[in-house]
Amino acid sequence: MSTKLPVGILGATGIVGQRFIQMLEQHPWFEVSWLAASDRSEGRTYAEAARWRLKTAIPAPIAKMTLSPAKPEGAPKIIFAALDAAIARELEPQFAAAGCAVVSNSSALRMQSDVPLVIPEVNGDHIRLIDKQSWRSQSGGYVVTNPNCSAIGLVIALAPLHRAFTLETVMAVTMQAVSGAGYPGVASLDILGNVIPYIAKEEEKMEEETQKLLGTLNGSRVDPAPFAMSAQCNRVAVEDGHTESVAVRFKKKAAPEEIIAAWNDFQAEPQQLRLPSAPPQPVVYMTAPDRPQPRFDVDLGAGMTTAVGRLRKCNVLDWKFTVLSHNTIRGAAGAALLNAEFLKAKGYFG
Amino acid sequence: MSTKLPVGILGATGIVGQRFIQMLEQHPWFEVSWLAASDRSEGRTYAEAARWRLKTAIPAPIAKMTLSPAKPEGAPKIIFAALDAAIARELEPQFAAAGCAVVSNSSALRMQSDVPLVIPEVNGDHIRLIDKQSWRSQSGGYVVTNPNCSAIGLVIALAPLHRAFTLETVMAVTMQAVSGAGYPGVASLDILGNVIPYIAKEEEKMEEETQKLLGTLNGSRVDPAPFAMSAQCNRVAVEDGHTESVAVRFKKKAAPEEIIAAWNDFQAEPQQLRLPSAPPQPVVYMTAPDRPQPRFDVDLGAGMTTAVGRLRKCNVLDWKFTVLSHNTIRGAAGAALLNAEFLKAKGYFG
Amino acid sequence: MSTKLPVGILGATGIVGQRFIQMLEQHPWFEVSWLAASDRSEGRTYAEAARWRLKTAIPAPIAKMTLSPAKPEGAPKIIFAALDAAIARELEPQFAAAGCAVVSNSSALRMQSDVPLVIPEVNGDHIRLIDKQSWRSQSGGYVVTNPNCSAIGLVIALAPLHRAFTLETVMAVTMQAVSGAGYPGVASLDILGNVIPYIAKEEEKMEEETQKLLGTLNGSRVDPAPFAMSAQCNRVAVEDGHTESVAVRFKKKAAPEEIIAAWNDFQAEPQQLRLPSAPPQPVVYMTAPDRPQPRFDVDLGAGMTTAVGRLRKCNVLDWKFTVLSHNTIRGAAGAALLNAEFLKAKGYFG
Amino acid sequence: MSTKLPVGILGATGIVGQRFIQMLEQHPWFEVSWLAASDRSEGRTYAEAARWRLKTAIPAPIAKMTLSPAKPEGAPKIIFAALDAAIARELEPQFAAAGCAVVSNSSALRMQSDVPLVIPEVNGDHIRLIDKQSWRSQSGGYVVTNPNCSAIGLVIALAPLHRAFTLETVMAVTMQAVSGAGYPGVASLDILGNVIPYIAKEEEKMEEETQKLLGTLNGSRVDPAPFAMSAQCNRVAVEDGHTESVAVRFKKKAAPEEIIAAWNDFQAEPQQLRLPSAPPQPVVYMTAPDRPQPRFDVDLGAGMTTAVGRLRKCNVLDWKFTVLSHNTIRGAAGAALLNAEFLKAKGYFG
Repeated sequence: MSTKLPVGILGATGIVGQRFIQMLEQHPWFEVSWLAASDRSEGRTYAEAARWRLKTAIPAPIAKMTLSPAKPEGAPKIIFAALDAAIARELEPQFAAAGCAVVSNSSALRMQSDVPLVIPEVNGDHIRLIDKQSWRSQSGGYVVTNPNCSAIGLVIALAPLHRAFTLETVMAVTMQAVSGAGYPGVASLDILGNVIPYIAKEEEKMEEETQKLLGTLNGSRVDPAPFAMSAQCNRVAVEDGHTESVAVRFKKKAAPEEIIAAWNDFQAEPQQLRLPSAPPQPVVYMTAPDRPQPRFDVDLGAGMTTAVGRLRKCNVLDWKFTVLSHNTIRGAAGAALLNAEFLKAKGYFG
Repeated sequence: MSTKLPVGILGATGIVGQRFIQMLEQHPWFEVSWLAASDRSEGRTYAEAARWRLKTAIPAPIAKMTLSPAKPEGAPKIIFAALDAAIARELEPQFAAAGCAVVSNSSALRMQSDVPLVIPEVNGDHIRLIDKQSWRSQSGGYVVTNPNCSAIGLVIALAPLHRAFTLETVMAVTMQAVSGAGYPGVASLDILGNVIPYIAKEEEKMEEETQKLLGTLNGSRVDPAPFAMSAQCNRVAVEDGHTESVAVRFKKKAAPEEIIAAWNDFQAEPQQLRLPSAPPQPVVYMTAPDRPQPRFDVDLGAGMTTAVGRLRKCNVLDWKFTVLSHNTIRGAAGAALLNAEFLKAKGYFG
Repeated sequence: MSTKLPVGILGATGIVGQRFIQMLEQHPWFEVSWLAASDRSEGRTYAEAARWRLKTAIPAPIAKMTLSPAKPEGAPKIIFAALDAAIARELEPQFAAAGCAVVSNSSALRMQSDVPLVIPEVNGDHIRLIDKQSWRSQSGGYVVTNPNCSAIGLVIALAPLHRAFTLETVMAVTMQAVSGAGYPGVASLDILGNVIPYIAKEEEKMEEETQKLLGTLNGSRVDPAPFAMSAQCNRVAVEDGHTESVAVRFKKKAAPEEIIAAWNDFQAEPQQLRLPSAPPQPVVYMTAPDRPQPRFDVDLGAGMTTAVGRLRKCNVLDWKFTVLSHNTIRGAAGAALLNAEFLKAKGYFG
Repeated sequence: MSTKLPVGILGATGIVGQRFIQMLEQHPWFEVSWLAASDRSEGRTYAEAARWRLKTAIPAPIAKMTLSPAKPEGAPKIIFAALDAAIARELEPQFAAAGCAVVSNSSALRMQSDVPLVIPEVNGDHIRLIDKQSWRSQSGGYVVTNPNCSAIGLVIALAPLHRAFTLETVMAVTMQAVSGAGYPGVASLDILGNVIPYIAKEEEKMEEETQKLLGTLNGSRVDPAPFAMSAQCNRVAVEDGHTESVAVRFKKKAAPEEIIAAWNDFQAEPQQLRLPSAPPQPVVYMTAPDRPQPRFDVDLGAGMTTAVGRLRKCNVLDWKFTVLSHNTIRGAAGAALLNAEFLKAKGYFG
């Protein structure tokens, strides 16, 4: 009999749900024992209900698994949630109230003051907010979230710089992959040969999440990082991988070789704990003048590494560079999975 | 017999050369009488030598025209030049020295102090630099240039704002079409499903050209505009149309409706003179939240109008917005053609 | 006051509905006076209800027009229908029963024995089936259809060959544009960097419609053309334009120059009648070895011309060639519009 | 010290050369010890000379390796050749004459009567032609070739059917990936939103190679398979993976389940010999109605498996189906590598 921890997936049929299933297929600690999606999927097998959009095949045991109702009854105690925000806002509290650890990729509760928004390499200490959640004291359940797919790569690239040089200003312009909009998501007629200079609510999320992630835990809340932050978000005809043109100003003087070293040498608790999904190197600086590029570099570190390149002086702020991050791995399912591994390592799974 | 002015095209077989031919097909003032390209094309008909990449057909008289040697002998007095920079640096002075008016799209001489870099709606007065050129006094010839395809849309969008509110800071991130790299240009293996965060020398051109274009004519040179300017340039899988995410800070306070009015009401000499290629409205502000988009809006004003949208507050500078401009029409052949029309109207064609 | 005939559009907000509106904007005979779409659109203005996906702007009078209920009451007597098959099957008979001439692009009734499936250049005489329809005798109303977007280009290319050489066998493999699936239609995650070798029911439609179109009117029905016909349908990452690789065998011997002449010389009643939407040349043979191509040739004849190229010997059948046709113009809205013009010219509009 | 066989790569910097390097990185039998490309690369390191276009990194020892002159002196005895046909025609005989086993992906010598054109699963016995080559008797050297990237998937799919049911007629229409044209290869301006219905010489190669591959060894030559074969070749905007719409007629009657079984059960000597690059299942029949698709299925069997789907009746021939094969793995580098493994297993490497 398996000694792995049983986990459930809410929103299992979507693009992020599929990535959860793919990443959990050979996971050393967790095993998928329960799947749920929309009402219309309930009772069907996963293979029938999901329009699988990944290159690897649906794992055989998952293909045959029947989708459960999206209710806490009968669900395991660890739930990965990949729901649309409106549904998440309703369901995630139900599961937390029923005693589940809800490891969520949804934006619904990310900015709620007692809900940790966590990247284990960046602000792992924020998980202590869990103990401020009323669900926790009542049923043992809680909600932990990971950031938006456009924020996470940026924040991982910024974190070592913020530590070393203290950010004063951040400007980011994104060129985001279509998989970030889910499936069916972006219509082909909208994106073939096109750029869409708008993603609903994305800029607001990117700005406020970046400041919460790089903020300071202060008792029962997080004080957002005090730097100025502005984001512009665009959609481009790329399958996977969000590319970002970033400019920053620091409080302290930084030489380019110091910045590159801060990236390449960046190590944090997930690496020290050797968490199964932690990339050996969270940030890699690419020296070729035209990299990173999503088509070639998105799978670095099995999609968990943030690639950075093109560091150069900025005439307005101090430095400019390009960031690339896999939006459905590091930016969604992999982020939540690493959060779960971190929670387990920290004793939050019982 | 035609009473139109005969013009020649240097670099006639390339993507920009093709646009010249397309735009001149029905031109009321000019008529193509001479074509030249590389040595290897010489003596062949245009239809044989050019790999035509436009949707409209090669005009019949052009198809049969034989390519001349790229030498001033036998060339008409008005030359549109669409040469690579290295070749332009050699050939354009030869034609100017031989008495030709060289209306150039090349970057070779743009930043030379006595060469006007002109957008007639923006800095038409800079053409007076022509009279400082030694070619002018010796043979009557001269060189006038238009800006890089990534700079022109930005500058047209900035010009009315600079007049009204005085720019202090400009940051621009581009998402540029593949046609900007000419033909064959960008390999399909490089751009399908990809973003390339690098275009050689593009950021430098964008920054310095923007400041020269918005600068002040000061005797025999132009004092660059004193605002800070930073550009980041990316290539995306779009055929035509450069999209830019821009942020600006003004010296004077501006309300959003004032900014939008400054754009929509922007009129300049080319409009007053009713130059054939001048768009009735140089800048159009699009109110839909997700526009402009290259696939749908690139042909506004027959490709000569700059589309702007998404004006909103910036947390770092004052305002953010999106700019779209057709890179081979307004950004290349159309820019040079409008320069030629402006020169004619101003009496520089004899 | 306008003396144009008022027409209505059923399914006005979809991709084909949009093409109807675009093509009718300056039409000399018809004027849009009524629009209807799904229930959810009713009562909204067209600008609010439609997600306009064309490069030209929504005509101003249309933008303000309010969408009517999709019922014959209050609708004009000429209705262009661009409905999904399931809805068309229900609504088109209602409009015909109410006395409307329903000029339909839907597949619902195409193969019904008393409904003409018509390309005016090919089988204009089939419109006489109208007089066999019970609606016609009861209310004066009737239904006329045009073929599927994948069949029409093929049939226009085949028609002159069938007349001259008698088809014995036809094999066609399509590479179809995404606009053929409507909007939102094909998800970008399904088609970026991909080929989808399947379009539901498309091969069956292509095969049976081709045979009905090239068949013979026999009293109250059409005897399908007796040649063997096989189709394979694929979706590719192209916005507009279905490309087809075709092979044919003839009963009579044909020289290649005879085949090409049959195409280039093909003229039919719409050309003789100078119908407003009839292309001067229904078929154009392109001599370049790598044409036609959708990106460059789809707009030939304002999207109404069928482009053919690459005629060469086939080792299995007699001849192979490539066909290209604009799927939402000649393959949908333009097809219906030309049918309406033909009906008017033939006295079927009162 | 390594006990692996040293191998060299001619044409090491191209797309196929890169695949050779990638596939040989961990190869159990072979080790790259020598690289050559064009004159202009000679003396540079591989990292400097190659524009690497794969997702995995250049293997570290290869990156530092210096490119040798493309001459047999100093080259190892086993040479993988990925040269353009014109150069191959000149160089491959030089290497064979110097005693090298030239395992070639080039089209130059494929149709030469004493040169085996081999797919080990299909016509492994044809390697006996090696002994008819004059190089072999003089120096021990020889040339063995693999088919064109468009032919190989088709032939692997046809082979088990030909054995079981005897092919009478084959018609194939391809939709080929851009990587098949090498790098830079297809210009992005040619293929974005486009289909190119022409690939120079491709149809001829596909037709004659298919018949040689499925032909019969007859002493010092191969009698081509006697079925009729017709190909039409198109380029589409796909990175990797050639998709083909195929129709066939058999001499013997075949039920669909027999055809599918023939594919799924197909095993040959490479599988029995457990050659390192042999896919466990050379052909996989996919049951989903819309598969195979290049974006999702191209990497089946590490790119060495041919995927087939959509088997259905044909109104003209007997059966229709879709084939997908990875064009730079199974269709180029992997094909040659499997040939080399097969030659070694058969004792042709001394």
